[in-house]
Amino acid sequence: MVSLFYLCDLFGVAVFAITGALMAGRKAMDLFGVLVVAIVTALGGGTLRDVILDRHPVSWIRDDTYILVATLAAVGTVIWVRLTHPIPERFLLIADAFGLAVFTVIGTEAALQQQVPLSTAVIMGVMTGVAGGVMRDIVCNDIPLIFHKEVYATACIVGSLSFIGLSRLDLLPGLATCLSMLIVLLIRLAAIRWHLALPRLHLLDRER
Amino acid sequence: MVSLFYLCDLFGVAVFAITGALMAGRKAMDLFGVLVVAIVTALGGGTLRDVILDRHPVSWIRDDTYILVATLAAVGTVIWVRLTHPIPERFLLIADAFGLAVFTVIGTEAALQQQVPLSTAVIMGVMTGVAGGVMRDIVCNDIPLIFHKEVYATACIVGSLSFIGLSRLDLLPGLATCLSMLIVLLIRLAAIRWHLALPRLHLLDRER
Amino acid sequence: MVSLFYLCDLFGVAVFAITGALMAGRKAMDLFGVLVVAIVTALGGGTLRDVILDRHPVSWIRDDTYILVATLAAVGTVIWVRLTHPIPERFLLIADAFGLAVFTVIGTEAALQQQVPLSTAVIMGVMTGVAGGVMRDIVCNDIPLIFHKEVYATACIVGSLSFIGLSRLDLLPGLATCLSMLIVLLIRLAAIRWHLALPRLHLLDRER
Repeated sequence: MVSLFYLCDLFGVAVFAITGALMAGRKAMDLFGVLVVAIVTALGGGTLRDVILDRHPVSWIRDDTYILVATLAAVGTVIWVRLTHPIPERFLLIADAFGLAVFTVIGTEAALQQQVPLSTAVIMGVMTGVAGGVMRDIVCNDIPLIFHKEVYATACIVGSLSFIGLSRLDLLPGLATCLSMLIVLLIRLAAIRWHLALPRLHLLDRER
Repeated sequence: MVSLFYLCDLFGVAVFAITGALMAGRKAMDLFGVLVVAIVTALGGGTLRDVILDRHPVSWIRDDTYILVATLAAVGTVIWVRLTHPIPERFLLIADAFGLAVFTVIGTEAALQQQVPLSTAVIMGVMTGVAGGVMRDIVCNDIPLIFHKEVYATACIVGSLSFIGLSRLDLLPGLATCLSMLIVLLIRLAAIRWHLALPRLHLLDRER
Repeated sequence: MVSLFYLCDLFGVAVFAITGALMAGRKAMDLFGVLVVAIVTALGGGTLRDVILDRHPVSWIRDDTYILVATLAAVGTVIWVRLTHPIPERFLLIADAFGLAVFTVIGTEAALQQQVPLSTAVIMGVMTGVAGGVMRDIVCNDIPLIFHKEVYATACIVGSLSFIGLSRLDLLPGLATCLSMLIVLLIRLAAIRWHLALPRLHLLDRER
């Protein structure tokens, strides 16, 4: 179970590093700038979660596999794109959906291991899933995806709640994890594909 | 005394959640996006303070009252606005002033409990008051209020210093807290009402 | 050795406070706003490093020399500019290069003291050097220098690696520190002077 958690974490690190590299490359940064943004995107969410939960040492502080995976994913992305051709923007959205799915569920799981209340576990799940991407978007001076994309926070909240529910059932080890990742992923992919959206709210009058 | 601290903290959480919900609604986010922004705004400042002061567990990690209050305030704001009509932008500024007043004084108090130097206590007060709102504005891609609004940091610094001074006097328990909150609030409300401003500085030449 | 570390840290705090004050002044903030931005810029990077490495108390929490130095540097900058004339924008870039050099090396050193893997030490070095300036730029709503300026991350990574290499050699105490600071500084100054840049990457196709 620990092992599945670890592998998923590394997978999330890899896909988020790819999204970071793509976004930084889109902003025409140089190689090292791309590397920095990739690492921030890949490790930002988990670091924030561990610091707030006081889980020290933070994952990548003692285990350099994390930074290695993020670096390889970023450099691999750069090489791949130079050898072939620029990647369509849609690919970034899809990779982001994978990272979101993995990190949301892993964040919820990590919080539950600390015996926190359920609402806290949901918040930690959403934060772990979203924070790396938000840092990527802020550092690259883009409007964060969470703000302008369809059902983004919704997918995280539903996925986190699903994991909490499913992990209460007596399923095979790892099944709750995989199923709830799938739920987040499908919601986001469906939203990207068909431009699904919940009704938007307009709460503030623009007088003055 | 602990109880007053706790109640004030929850009040600050509620008003900042309202400002977060209003700002997110202004950006036409969906319900869950509004919820996420409300919670970030409400809990961001206190979380940052506790992490830097190494006060673990962070308030809302073990006690789900915080998240509950923030959620209710956000959902209540959404329902209220849908039932009546959009809220004037000025209301957001006023709610923000209440949150600023409460969190600045509470942050100063929390830091003093850790026997830090006075300058540190002032910084922690300003940070607690300001950080949630700055996160709200950054996530919503707005220019942070602290940057473009009248005497914003000034109100915090004066309020924090007032609390440090007043808490040295032999006042009734809680009086120093309430008085210094009132000072921050009045400074901000006066600044909003009459567009008060300290002289602005222009330190950089725009050659090139 | 501790003493050199401490003095360098304070020097970095002073120059970053100056850059923060200049940037805030450019945005025409009032005196207290300038002060807040200066302190965030000066203490942001080191705080982030200490929180992630779980080095508590964070430097400035117990020792108010840090806040004092940052405040004096900010107020001194304001007075200096009012007495003479606005400072050319180039000066901000140069002061930023000094801060970057000092904090990158100090961050690497602090991480190595915790016996972390080398890749972690490089990341902590880059983060310590860059984070304060990124916070300054985000709070002031500017595009972070790290994103649009020449060989910015590159200078940090080279400097951090140099320090790791040089500190393995049997040099005079402090020499590795000073030499690698000089390396970061020279790379950035050369980049500013001759607009040096690594090839930029364009990884994303702008369809849609």
